[in-house]
Amino acid sequence: MAKQFDVVVIGAGPGGYIAAIRAAQLGLSVACIDAWATADGKPAPGGTCTNVGCIPSKALLQSSEHFEQANHHFAEHGIEVKSVGLKLDTLLGRKNTVVKQNNEGILYLFKKNKVTFFHGIGSFVGKADDGWSIKVAGKAEEALLARHVIVATGSSPRQLPGLSFDEDKILSNDGALRIPAVPKKLGVIGAGVIGLELGSVWRRLGAEVTVLEAMPDFLAVADQQVAKEAQKVLTKQGLAIHTGVKIGEVKTTAKSVTVPYTDAAGAEQKLVVDRLIVSIGRVPNADGLGADAVGLKRDERGFIAVDDDCKTNLPNVWAVGDVVRGPMLAHKAEEEGVAVAERIAGQHGHVNFATIPSVIYTSPEIAWVGKNEQQLKAEGRAYKAGSFPFMANGRARALGDTTGFVKVLADAKSDEVLGVHIIGPMASELISEAVTIMEFRGAAEDIARICHAHPTLSEAMKEAALAVDKRTLNL
Amino acid sequence: MAKQFDVVVIGAGPGGYIAAIRAAQLGLSVACIDAWATADGKPAPGGTCTNVGCIPSKALLQSSEHFEQANHHFAEHGIEVKSVGLKLDTLLGRKNTVVKQNNEGILYLFKKNKVTFFHGIGSFVGKADDGWSIKVAGKAEEALLARHVIVATGSSPRQLPGLSFDEDKILSNDGALRIPAVPKKLGVIGAGVIGLELGSVWRRLGAEVTVLEAMPDFLAVADQQVAKEAQKVLTKQGLAIHTGVKIGEVKTTAKSVTVPYTDAAGAEQKLVVDRLIVSIGRVPNADGLGADAVGLKRDERGFIAVDDDCKTNLPNVWAVGDVVRGPMLAHKAEEEGVAVAERIAGQHGHVNFATIPSVIYTSPEIAWVGKNEQQLKAEGRAYKAGSFPFMANGRARALGDTTGFVKVLADAKSDEVLGVHIIGPMASELISEAVTIMEFRGAAEDIARICHAHPTLSEAMKEAALAVDKRTLNL
Repeated sequence: MAKQFDVVVIGAGPGGYIAAIRAAQLGLSVACIDAWATADGKPAPGGTCTNVGCIPSKALLQSSEHFEQANHHFAEHGIEVKSVGLKLDTLLGRKNTVVKQNNEGILYLFKKNKVTFFHGIGSFVGKADDGWSIKVAGKAEEALLARHVIVATGSSPRQLPGLSFDEDKILSNDGALRIPAVPKKLGVIGAGVIGLELGSVWRRLGAEVTVLEAMPDFLAVADQQVAKEAQKVLTKQGLAIHTGVKIGEVKTTAKSVTVPYTDAAGAEQKLVVDRLIVSIGRVPNADGLGADAVGLKRDERGFIAVDDDCKTNLPNVWAVGDVVRGPMLAHKAEEEGVAVAERIAGQHGHVNFATIPSVIYTSPEIAWVGKNEQQLKAEGRAYKAGSFPFMANGRARALGDTTGFVKVLADAKSDEVLGVHIIGPMASELISEAVTIMEFRGAAEDIARICHAHPTLSEAMKEAALAVDKRTLNL
Repeated sequence: MAKQFDVVVIGAGPGGYIAAIRAAQLGLSVACIDAWATADGKPAPGGTCTNVGCIPSKALLQSSEHFEQANHHFAEHGIEVKSVGLKLDTLLGRKNTVVKQNNEGILYLFKKNKVTFFHGIGSFVGKADDGWSIKVAGKAEEALLARHVIVATGSSPRQLPGLSFDEDKILSNDGALRIPAVPKKLGVIGAGVIGLELGSVWRRLGAEVTVLEAMPDFLAVADQQVAKEAQKVLTKQGLAIHTGVKIGEVKTTAKSVTVPYTDAAGAEQKLVVDRLIVSIGRVPNADGLGADAVGLKRDERGFIAVDDDCKTNLPNVWAVGDVVRGPMLAHKAEEEGVAVAERIAGQHGHVNFATIPSVIYTSPEIAWVGKNEQQLKAEGRAYKAGSFPFMANGRARALGDTTGFVKVLADAKSDEVLGVHIIGPMASELISEAVTIMEFRGAAEDIARICHAHPTLSEAMKEAALAVDKRTLNL
């Protein structure tokens, strides 16, 4: 007989596992199905984020940043190290340990919150009397009955047409996190978050990295002043970045990968590398879900179609995270997961899509929330901008990391903060203050009048807010 | 003839230089007098903070942290360094460069904002027709007439009775920032911010450091749960910390310093060290100001007496920063400086003393804002507490720095955030979100419902806020 649950969540990534826990906290009986497995076949919940995304990339970024410091910056601190060597196995092993801690953490959380976990692939079988029939296909076959279903199946890396990921020469984010030896030459197609983060990791570890981007503008998704600074700094660090290129047919041999492309000036070029990371976006994991069996609607781009509340076209079927519209960000998925669990429990969960921060963990880090200048201009909104460079920030000088700036954008009349854009040390952490201000619909003057501890990088936020009113104190 | 100004600021530390700039921005004619000099006699504005406080200590903390990482943590990242050497001259030289950048920055800001700078000691001469007669005694003698005077003369390290600072064996914060060779044994009297920060620096660089503290509780000023964690971690790092001691008569010879003390159990002990840092608090710099000549009132502890608006007993004489009541913090001085300048200009400057954050830059860092648990208990206030350990935070794991926790204290009924206490990585930067929440009188649930980027340390703040309502998602 089928096991019955109030809520069955398909997928244990950040959207799914958080939805499952929140639903269980609210007194619902919950199951969560996830197929991800460790090398030895054990459950590895956490999805892309934990297994081959946010978490392992940050582990590698930290290790490679230490390596970079040791190689290039210790001398100025008076620290003398002879022969900085790299044991890549250990570096990658540490990353694997961090991932495993997170996998195990989620399994522990399921147990603690009484979420029943099924290790396998979840899919729709059909409508049941009081909900939906769901099957689990995996080590053990299971039949479940769910009053509510939350689809949280995430996304997968997009291939270049005709070029599959072999994770040896042609790497997705997965393979790019476990290259067994530092390549001499590494190519990256796609200068997005993943391409820049992983390109930075391997550049720091010694690879010669070339990044090819089809869009004419670098980091078109970011504020263009931030993007320009990022391109300048990353180029200076040694990433060769070419934008506006048109990629030709990639050829792979046992020894190398050849990428012919037309550059922005229209000239034919050829990039020959040892390995190639393809990071040209991600596609929703909506196949294999049995969506057609139950008539679950998808949009024209293949995402599961949902409204602002994450409701699909089917009663009591919800979808959250990368498999639906909106930015493919772990914390956006989490917010949706919490909100859906609360709606199922009769509460009034809410996600403010206007205040979801974005982060790129290069060095310097890049983070933003709200609108950027090109968006405000396109909207014809009257705004004021204030910037402050970390070069003039005491903490940044003490850290020896003065690249970048904070920019605050505020409504020209009301002074309400419309967006905050940061490139610089710890931007990922500094952005939380900006999100908080925007959630309270605070003004630039609010930031400017709030006491910021000295000496901190966050003082740059205060000064940028003062700059909106043309009254910086330290510039 | 005396030079006439709307505002004369005595002291160019964070309170003074910021007050001068803000007053000039508001259209007032402003002079700022400061006596601090570089080794070669040039002006060195910035006060204790820039010259021998916040800025140089953070520079040394950063360098010594790199040294610590190289010595003890690189192996786990797979980074192999042979023979980590230290060129202390270079390390201290870098710190001096950072200080110099800040000195020069302030001189540039004065020029840019048309603040007239006088290099010398400023003091009151007497009442003038329309204000106050002020003299500058230094390289050039000057007579100034000021409509308003802002006293921002800061503070100095307190001596142990009978034991002057020679900055060779007996060190204040000044000498402790420029010990010419890493001492084998270093003593620290006073386990406050300065003692712990500088003790940490020299411990990391190789000194055997013993800290003696008269108070029975370690870091009595901090939330006691944070203090206990700090004591545990710092002790584990190698600081020998003894609280509840009674210091006897310190004896200095050419070779060593002997500190006899009675330990907490009443036993006589003797600490013999190469050098001794005395960091037992600071006293206001209110002498030599000519205060008596004009009848400027001081309080029973020697501070210049002011009201909440920084008004002294004399008309149009104000005082800000360490020389008045309240925490001796650069950012508190700055806030007061801005508020006083605005009041002089007819605006309504305001300082919210309830939301001034405190930071200790040990590793892990410690930061807090608002009330701690012992204060709330003493007030009989009904509150809820929620904590979240960095051990359960994905970013902290990826960084390899999982010590500590975030604690949010909220009103039992209204849920208003009453205090936030952090010990852990980047606490100094994370606290700005908490200050912002408190400025808006936000609730713990507000923090909990604000989207926090993943993976960031700031998620620990969100989880601690969830913990207030007993619904952490990741613990």
